[in-house]
Amino acid sequence: MTTETVSAASPEVPDLVERQSVTLFDESQPLTLASGRTIGPITVAYQTYGELSPRRDNAIFICHALTGDAHVAGRHREDDRKSGWWDGFVGPGKALDTDRYFVICANVLGGCQGTTGPTSINPATGEQWGPDFPFITVSDIVTVHKALVDHLGIERLLAVIGGSLGGMQVLEWAAQYPDGLASAIVLAAGAKLNAQGIAFNAVGRRAIYADPAFKSGRYYGEEHLPRFGLALARMIAHITYLSEQSIELKFGRKLQHSEELTYDLLKETEFQIESYLHHQGKQFVERFDANSYLFVTRAMDYFDLVESHGPMTTALGKTDARFLVVAYTTDWLFPTPQSREIVRSLLESGQHASFAELDSPYGHDAFLIDSQLPMLARLVTPFLETTYQTIAQRQGTRDKS
Amino acid sequence: MTTETVSAASPEVPDLVERQSVTLFDESQPLTLASGRTIGPITVAYQTYGELSPRRDNAIFICHALTGDAHVAGRHREDDRKSGWWDGFVGPGKALDTDRYFVICANVLGGCQGTTGPTSINPATGEQWGPDFPFITVSDIVTVHKALVDHLGIERLLAVIGGSLGGMQVLEWAAQYPDGLASAIVLAAGAKLNAQGIAFNAVGRRAIYADPAFKSGRYYGEEHLPRFGLALARMIAHITYLSEQSIELKFGRKLQHSEELTYDLLKETEFQIESYLHHQGKQFVERFDANSYLFVTRAMDYFDLVESHGPMTTALGKTDARFLVVAYTTDWLFPTPQSREIVRSLLESGQHASFAELDSPYGHDAFLIDSQLPMLARLVTPFLETTYQTIAQRQGTRDKS
Repeated sequence: MTTETVSAASPEVPDLVERQSVTLFDESQPLTLASGRTIGPITVAYQTYGELSPRRDNAIFICHALTGDAHVAGRHREDDRKSGWWDGFVGPGKALDTDRYFVICANVLGGCQGTTGPTSINPATGEQWGPDFPFITVSDIVTVHKALVDHLGIERLLAVIGGSLGGMQVLEWAAQYPDGLASAIVLAAGAKLNAQGIAFNAVGRRAIYADPAFKSGRYYGEEHLPRFGLALARMIAHITYLSEQSIELKFGRKLQHSEELTYDLLKETEFQIESYLHHQGKQFVERFDANSYLFVTRAMDYFDLVESHGPMTTALGKTDARFLVVAYTTDWLFPTPQSREIVRSLLESGQHASFAELDSPYGHDAFLIDSQLPMLARLVTPFLETTYQTIAQRQGTRDKS
Repeated sequence: MTTETVSAASPEVPDLVERQSVTLFDESQPLTLASGRTIGPITVAYQTYGELSPRRDNAIFICHALTGDAHVAGRHREDDRKSGWWDGFVGPGKALDTDRYFVICANVLGGCQGTTGPTSINPATGEQWGPDFPFITVSDIVTVHKALVDHLGIERLLAVIGGSLGGMQVLEWAAQYPDGLASAIVLAAGAKLNAQGIAFNAVGRRAIYADPAFKSGRYYGEEHLPRFGLALARMIAHITYLSEQSIELKFGRKLQHSEELTYDLLKETEFQIESYLHHQGKQFVERFDANSYLFVTRAMDYFDLVESHGPMTTALGKTDARFLVVAYTTDWLFPTPQSREIVRSLLESGQHASFAELDSPYGHDAFLIDSQLPMLARLVTPFLETTYQTIAQRQGTRDKS
């Protein structure tokens, strides 16, 4: 890293980033989904950071989690109060060093942050898709993202990285496009969602279905949106993103408004943890669509690497990508054994697989929490560095020969 | 145990049991609740098993859990398809041996299975209480049960036993009526509900509040009851009663109706675990009242032994009752450290405390599951036996002196 590069990371330089989008799979060549249905055109919303190297060998694709989006770092406008969702991890001099790497993140198919999803217009009717949007899977999500990467002229990604549903996408990338990536970084994820995870998704979805404003998904343009149901779904899910320890440490049994218990049955936010969850639910409905939530959680339920691609050694055995698999001690949505299973399979196939279980009290969400990023960076930075060098050496050997 | 006693346990003898009830705390002498409000009269629904000994020293009081009732064992009619909720543990020759002990269980205050609660008539209005029912706490529940035990002419119980919210009641018994019990058996419980537990109760309650049929609790006599909300609350809670292991073992990712995925967004019961939870929710609303659920979960949230009775060594230090505290390895609603904390405090006070962490894959519900009862019985049977002998010896000594 040169001095000039470091100075580019100085706070004086604005961190503004542009929303980009591209339309792929037009009507004449639509995408055939895992369900057998077709869809096209597909608009993909994405953002990029840093510069693609002349050899096009420094591109990292970030797969976002369930309710994430393409806005991974920086701000769209100078007066934005918040930066992107992984701003502590992506940027000049950061773990995904945008002085060095070309970083891409795109909203998922079926999402509601710019990529085609249930809120988009169905070209056949001229109206929003709603529940008629075709069922999507993690495989479909990855297929669309691969098309974006092709469109950007990148043959082989330096790395695909993601946590949770993002980690599932990384595994799917490796299985579906084994030559498309030089490394895979899987965080807080697994090769499938376990029954407990499906159960939590199911009760969340039921909260949405049961909201009278949901109207079987045909609520666009209505006065009332299924905000109650969606907020409740988020509140339920949010509990699973935290650990018992972190929730106990932060909230315990502290009261929200008073020193004394109120003995009021209809008071919903007596304890701080209740108030916190309500706030999470309320914030979420401002930025997310209920139909999208149904589609994307179902994609997560459906994901099963082995079901789709055969035994794990076969599913992951076709790629020569280097793997870094990271679990968190207090993650109970994707407990560590799920990561170990992936790593064991990779090692059995003689592949390169690094594994770390990071000690964090923050549960599943640890990969998103600023204070927990430095310990992740200490693994990711050298892993990417080594991967990059390995590629460069191979390329050098090839150039000479 | 004599041969005659054993023959009384033969299957030919019907296990019929009668519903009983008594009215306590009449209007002239109402019960003052922890909230400061008063209520009276209070009807208490209870059931008894076995015979009270002439010395009245063989009575065991069972505290039921959140949604349990007084019908702990046996059948009300010969054609009842189901026996009571702890039929595998209570009866002739069983762990709580009704050939030997006089066993009592009563529905909790605020419940909906015969004891005064929100579905009862408010004498002031002649209508059902609904949300105007006074706020109740674990302390209030125990006060009412103590009054029942007094009414039955029992000065000192041989044991008070209960799991989960029932275990909380056992702790409250020991703190509130230190001379009222010779032993305390606390199963899968803790001295307070942690923040994660409050969080799950909170999202369950929110599902009820958000059901349009709830109408702020004034739904009695309406065409529609808040069945959706109550069922969803139960589904959420039910996940917390199971362990990740048991749910994975029993359901995994098995599909309910077909061999193949349907790719149908609005299909709510595609996976077996979803169908199972729906069934649990559906069954529950047939037997439980939404207002009761709100009151009783709030009582559980509010329970904090130390908050009410001072440091644990003080709270539990006044009784000379022998304690048996049992935790289950996979219980994540009341993890083992909560039991250890109780036991440590008892030992620090020089009290008798036995502790066991039972290895079970069944999570919090293990104390209710038939297959898991023998290992619990192996602890409880000798513990009760020893307690009974200790009392008899003391009594003998006293009789001679």
